[in-house]
Amino acid sequence: MNVGILGCGTIGGGVLKLIDDLPASRNIKVLKVFDLPSKKEMLGDRFAESIDEVCQNPEIDVVIEAMGGDKFPYECIVKALKNKKSVVTSNKETVSLHIDEFYALAKENGVSFMCEASVGGGIPLICSLIDSIKVNDVDRIYGIINGTTNFVLTKMEKEGLSMEDALNEAKRLGFAEFDATADIEGLDMTRKICILSSIAYGGYVPYSEIYHYGISKVTKEIFEDLKAKGFTLKFVAESRRTGEKSARVSVEPVAVTKDNPLSAVNYEFNSVYLNCSSNDLLGFYGKGAGRFPTATAMVSDVRRIMENAGTYYYENSGNFEVDNFLSSEKYYVYKDGKSEIVNGVKDVSSYDFVARIF
Amino acid sequence: MNVGILGCGTIGGGVLKLIDDLPASRNIKVLKVFDLPSKKEMLGDRFAESIDEVCQNPEIDVVIEAMGGDKFPYECIVKALKNKKSVVTSNKETVSLHIDEFYALAKENGVSFMCEASVGGGIPLICSLIDSIKVNDVDRIYGIINGTTNFVLTKMEKEGLSMEDALNEAKRLGFAEFDATADIEGLDMTRKICILSSIAYGGYVPYSEIYHYGISKVTKEIFEDLKAKGFTLKFVAESRRTGEKSARVSVEPVAVTKDNPLSAVNYEFNSVYLNCSSNDLLGFYGKGAGRFPTATAMVSDVRRIMENAGTYYYENSGNFEVDNFLSSEKYYVYKDGKSEIVNGVKDVSSYDFVARIF
Repeated sequence: MNVGILGCGTIGGGVLKLIDDLPASRNIKVLKVFDLPSKKEMLGDRFAESIDEVCQNPEIDVVIEAMGGDKFPYECIVKALKNKKSVVTSNKETVSLHIDEFYALAKENGVSFMCEASVGGGIPLICSLIDSIKVNDVDRIYGIINGTTNFVLTKMEKEGLSMEDALNEAKRLGFAEFDATADIEGLDMTRKICILSSIAYGGYVPYSEIYHYGISKVTKEIFEDLKAKGFTLKFVAESRRTGEKSARVSVEPVAVTKDNPLSAVNYEFNSVYLNCSSNDLLGFYGKGAGRFPTATAMVSDVRRIMENAGTYYYENSGNFEVDNFLSSEKYYVYKDGKSEIVNGVKDVSSYDFVARIF
Repeated sequence: MNVGILGCGTIGGGVLKLIDDLPASRNIKVLKVFDLPSKKEMLGDRFAESIDEVCQNPEIDVVIEAMGGDKFPYECIVKALKNKKSVVTSNKETVSLHIDEFYALAKENGVSFMCEASVGGGIPLICSLIDSIKVNDVDRIYGIINGTTNFVLTKMEKEGLSMEDALNEAKRLGFAEFDATADIEGLDMTRKICILSSIAYGGYVPYSEIYHYGISKVTKEIFEDLKAKGFTLKFVAESRRTGEKSARVSVEPVAVTKDNPLSAVNYEFNSVYLNCSSNDLLGFYGKGAGRFPTATAMVSDVRRIMENAGTYYYENSGNFEVDNFLSSEKYYVYKDGKSEIVNGVKDVSSYDFVARIF
């Protein structure tokens, strides 16, 4: 199986190293790597000047997209699929927007589209979800699927740091990007729960309609107040199917008690639960980000394609109607140093901070 | 894909129901079911008088073994594989003894041998382990892989029940067999960690050489004493690779603090962690037993065979040398109402109870 890589940064470079280190008996080889000219020397003969040297290369079977962003990766993925290359990507931004088109093009061209690494890093989550929906109905998905914010909240909880200090520590250790807005405001988790929900329900759960409420307003005082009430705070994505074509989906902070397994998911770890009709509750835990966990998930996708184990085609049976939990669930609300637990929240902006009771 | 089932009890009957309920588009059908003549009326035309009607039936592609026990299931599995039927089993007893032979016969006959349901019930554990070892080294496996004993310990911890009352409650709810010795003494977990370790390391970790110390001596007083010291008690299997052909393996009670995610795994749930070279720590959680979780795992195995996603052949590279943790780790030891924590235990029989500090 011959592979081409688009983007040789943290993740793409990790994939290159893992594949180069595999025993020859595995029969996976990287032929070409596309990146900026500054990488030419490092990559030698394998450097590709243009994406066409990868996406239209007749010797390449699988294109690994590891560039990030939306527009350019989208064009590359489409080009690769149309040239009958299977595609493996970790790019939740472009997948959450174009999942219908990617899977349809893969089917049309008789190749595979795989995005295991786009949610939960190295956790074998999407393959397990796909396995599950083939013999079960999955009607609820929830969990911690952003390592940056879980690291920040854990630091605040365990070491009493402020949001700013915790975030700086995350940046110093490489768990957060320079601009962590997409993490802190929940956009990253919104993309991920969009992908998981759409695959689980067999219908697109529009990214743009998912309610998200960030954690930027969390203070030390709020943490202490929650602790005094027996809770800790986790930033969670949840999706519940509510009907044939409807779901309740949100990305928001939740107050959990110590009895809840999510309270023991700390630092950069992720954990996701699937509620299955015949298999009951299934949980998964692992590093949701980082070079080698993410790269491992991508190499596993290549291996699945090679073993013909990756042929799955999501087809959008129609977009889902999406609402949120604000009117139907209990919430912890905080304003001017005082807090209470209320049945439903009408207007989140009338409080300093709100968190769903989980 | 045409399926034959051997044994139509709790698990086999669950498989029959799940497959009968699948949409016709899934193309999985049960043709024959072998069981005692008393099931003949219920099964109608599908009743098989002898195992040969299943194992030698030219129309059957996959044989599902759901009888339990060792000798007879072993003969049936061998016969099915020799007749070029793929085999799916949940039988940890026979798999832990004959894993080498089953995989070798499958390879020789160009079919699949699948035993996902033999460990961790409905948790997609063995398929994830096999996926992992194809791109990672797995050098440590640990977790709670017996639902009966976890239910009993959880009842003792949370409700202050005695071992006897907790076990009776487990039997009443169907979480324990009439004779729970294999669970309580750790034989069931020993079989399971034997299977997981052998697959992970690519060499047989002999079942008969694995150290196991049961939980029959746990009392309310011990629970209270552990709680006062900041611990709770879990019954855990662990395997660590220590060299090319050696591993440290045990099934024993362990004392865990509330910070350890295992402390939040309660009642009949199971949870297993794999330590992977590039993917770091991966965790799995779900119902480790029960009719539909186990049956779901078996139907998933059939589906994997159908999609050609199940072709994996374990080959024994040579038996492993096995030792245990007794001399190298800290232990909680209890005798005559008093306890202490010691560095290593020489003779477990000189105490009323011992538990490894985890």
